[in-house]
This record gives sequence, C-alpha cells and structure tokens, in this order.
Amino acid sequence: MAANTTNENSASLEKRVARLEARLHDLEDQEQIRECLARYGYAADLGRSEEWLDLWTADGVYDLDDAPYQGRDALTKIIMGGVHKGIENRCLHTVGNLFIRVDGDDAWAEGYSVVFFREREDDRYIPWSCGYNHWDFRRVDGEWKMVRRYRRAVGDKAWGGTVIAEYQKEAAR
Amino acid sequence: MAANTTNENSASLEKRVARLEARLHDLEDQEQIRECLARYGYAADLGRSEEWLDLWTADGVYDLDDAPYQGRDALTKIIMGGVHKGIENRCLHTVGNLFIRVDGDDAWAEGYSVVFFREREDDRYIPWSCGYNHWDFRRVDGEWKMVRRYRRAVGDKAWGGTVIAEYQKEAAR
Amino acid sequence: MAANTTNENSASLEKRVARLEARLHDLEDQEQIRECLARYGYAADLGRSEEWLDLWTADGVYDLDDAPYQGRDALTKIIMGGVHKGIENRCLHTVGNLFIRVDGDDAWAEGYSVVFFREREDDRYIPWSCGYNHWDFRRVDGEWKMVRRYRRAVGDKAWGGTVIAEYQKEAAR
Repeated sequence: MAANTTNENSASLEKRVARLEARLHDLEDQEQIRECLARYGYAADLGRSEEWLDLWTADGVYDLDDAPYQGRDALTKIIMGGVHKGIENRCLHTVGNLFIRVDGDDAWAEGYSVVFFREREDDRYIPWSCGYNHWDFRRVDGEWKMVRRYRRAVGDKAWGGTVIAEYQKEAAR
Repeated sequence: MAANTTNENSASLEKRVARLEARLHDLEDQEQIRECLARYGYAADLGRSEEWLDLWTADGVYDLDDAPYQGRDALTKIIMGGVHKGIENRCLHTVGNLFIRVDGDDAWAEGYSVVFFREREDDRYIPWSCGYNHWDFRRVDGEWKMVRRYRRAVGDKAWGGTVIAEYQKEAAR
Repeated sequence: MAANTTNENSASLEKRVARLEARLHDLEDQEQIRECLARYGYAADLGRSEEWLDLWTADGVYDLDDAPYQGRDALTKIIMGGVHKGIENRCLHTVGNLFIRVDGDDAWAEGYSVVFFREREDDRYIPWSCGYNHWDFRRVDGEWKMVRRYRRAVGDKAWGGTVIAEYQKEAAR
C-alpha cells in the first residue's frame, strides 16, 4: 500500500474519531444535566439552600406562575420562604420523563416533577405536587447551571389551558 | 517504523473505532427509546392525540387486558375514549426503572409506569395507576415506534398471578 | 507527507481512541448500575427472592436503621419476612434522581426510592415509602453487585436530623 493511501485512511479515521467525540460529548452533557436536576432535588430536600442557589446562574429565573422570581435575592426568598420551609426534611423532589437537547454551552430540557411529602398528622406520604417543566441551562466554568425553570402545576389553568392551546395552535399551522 | 507496521496499526485502530461506533450507537438508541416513552407521556397528558398515535407503528398493539387493541382505529378509541378524556389535562404519565435492549432496528424495554391524577373533588394528587410493562419497538424511517405495549396493573390477577407464575416456572426449569 | 509524520498522527489518534474507550466504558457502567437497580425492583415486586438475593455480594449490607442486615442469611430474612411478604405482588419499587460514580470495579450511587403499594381495603395506590439512599457497588465476575445500601426514610430522625446535620457540619468547615 502506498503512503498516500495510508494517509487517506488515516484522515478518514480521524473524521470518524472526531464524530465519536462529538456524539459522546453530547451523551455526557445530557447525563450532567440529569445530575444537575438530581442535585437540585437533594439540595432542596436536605435544606442545603446555598447549594440549591448555586445551581442557578446569577440571573436565573424561576417561573412558577404569573410573577417569575429572578436573580439570587428572589430565589433566596423561595428556598428560605414559608412554603419551602414547611415541607423541608419531609419532602422528596423527583424528576422524570426527561427530554434533553444540548447545543454547545446551551441546553434545554423538558420533563415532569413530582414532589412527595410526608404529612404531619398521620406520617403518610402523598404526591404533594405534580408539574410540567421546561428548563434552560447554560454551561458556566464547566458546570451546567439553570438559567430558567418554567413550571406549571398539572391540572391548573396554564397546564390544561394555555400550554395545550399553544400546542394546538402550533399544530394547526 | 516500516509502512507495513503502520498499516497493521491502522487496521487495528480501525477495528477499535468500529467497535466504539457500535457501542455508542447502542447507548444513543437506548436514549431515543427513553425519549419515545417521554413523548408518549407528554402527548397523552397534553391531549395531543395525533402525536400519541404517531408513536405507534401502523399495526401497533396495546395489550392492556384480555382484549388487546390493535391498529390505529383501535388505538384512537383508547386515546379519544371516556377513560382517557376523564383524566386528560389533570394527569401525569411517568415511566421508570427502564431496562432496554436494542438489536438493529428492533428493541424491547421493560419498566414501570405510574400515572398521577389530580382529583376533581379536593384538587389533591394521587397515584392513579401503577403498572408493569413490556414494550416492543421497531425503527421506522429512523424513528423508534411502539410495536406492542403489554401492561398489567400492579395488584391485579395477571401481575400477582400469571406474570409471577411464569417467572417461577422459568426459574424452576 | 513523510512516514514519520504519519506515525505521529497515528499515535495521537490512538490516544484519542483510548480516551473514548474509557469515557464510553464509564457511561456503560453507569447504565449497568441503573439496570441493577431496576432488576432489584422487579425481583422484589415479582417475588423473585433468589434473584433479589443474587444482586448483593456475599457480604452485602442493607443498612435500613440502627441494626444493619449483613450477608445472605440476614438479607433472606428481609425478603422472606413479614413486612415484605405483606406488600409483595401489590407493590412497585422505583428509584430516581440517580447520581452515579464509577471507579474501576467499584462504584457508588445516590438517589431516591419510592415504593408504591395497592391497599387491600379500597384497591387504591399510595406512596407507601419514600427514601434517601446511598449504594456501594462492586463488579464481581463482570456483574455489578450491591455491597451496601444505606437507606433512610424521608421525614424520619436520620433524614431530617442526622443526615442534614452532617451536611451542615461539612458545609461549615
């Protein structure tokens, strides 16, 4: 075989390796985003509020309803606020059915969140809340941070109303 | 180093790259099947019935009980039927504990399904159903479609009876 | 291009391929550990007790409370015992929010466990238990086995007390 052919083979192999590197990087990023969401739950449930705050970018937005919380001070109010303190240590924040797309240092995910809670009266566990979520992420210094979490409760107006109406409008186009 | 040795190294490297491509493809397929199951939940919960139907092959079978539903007309009856319409927009279809095996353009998965529902009387969430599932998939035009879903409710006769009896028979062989 | 340069390129490509192999192996191991946890649920729920026992190493420890169960005889007592037999065939053991780290033939995972149960009185499903878990794994003859499962119920003293207190102590350092 001539050195020329060897070089050609090597160039083609290099392309395949580069493609593998990109595809694997994508799977690894998806897994890191799953881990970010797992940490989010641990930090919320264990009362590690600083760690929870550090999972957001400095200008992170938590869009829970018509008045979104933006930035560290606003987010501190959620995690230190009465609603959260009322369930802390008795709750379990889970996510599932995740669908994740990564584009360089940006990413988004959609999925479900279910928070379980152990009631005080009878010590029984209940599904305390069920939500539909869209998350935006940005990689900051090598770590995925939450830029925005849009969450709507299942069975509320936005879930059964706005969200579905928008999808149907899109589908009708 | 002689050109001969270079060629040998290159051939061995090519084999390793081909093996990596196959293994990565397998992980990507597994992830796509997880995404298919996530979409299944979104479509069911958001009332996107056409999208839900498109996740099945044309001859798809939903084996829920002794009288399986097969094909688009039969599946339309499920997603447009009274039971589903009675929970739509107030439900959350989740899957978990997935175990997936891919073989070319065929695949199967086993796992659990839990549907949460927000009750109308008191707005509280409940686990509305819990199921054991076996899914078969086929890749059609590059997309994974559901060929068959076998599902039995936890605590029903087939779950505690037939399914376990079959496993025990197999184990006894 | 001289044969020398070809050899250099080939050496550098070999390094990239070796790095890809290691990274892919890590993702595959993580997936195998998820499958081990899925099997654990299936075996517990379907009454396949031998299969459940085989998921542990010979000296496996199930640390549920102040008196951990260690070894096959002790673990047999759990899976054959009254508490488990009381829910078998009517329960669904799920795990979620998994965070997994692999180091050669050792690994650990953290995550949540939720067991659903179909009550006998009214056939309704409830979240029967919610737990925080740390698992240690060891690869034995090519299969991941559970070396130790530390589990504490959400809302119990160790969860809301000890576990959080330890994290807070660490954070204060």
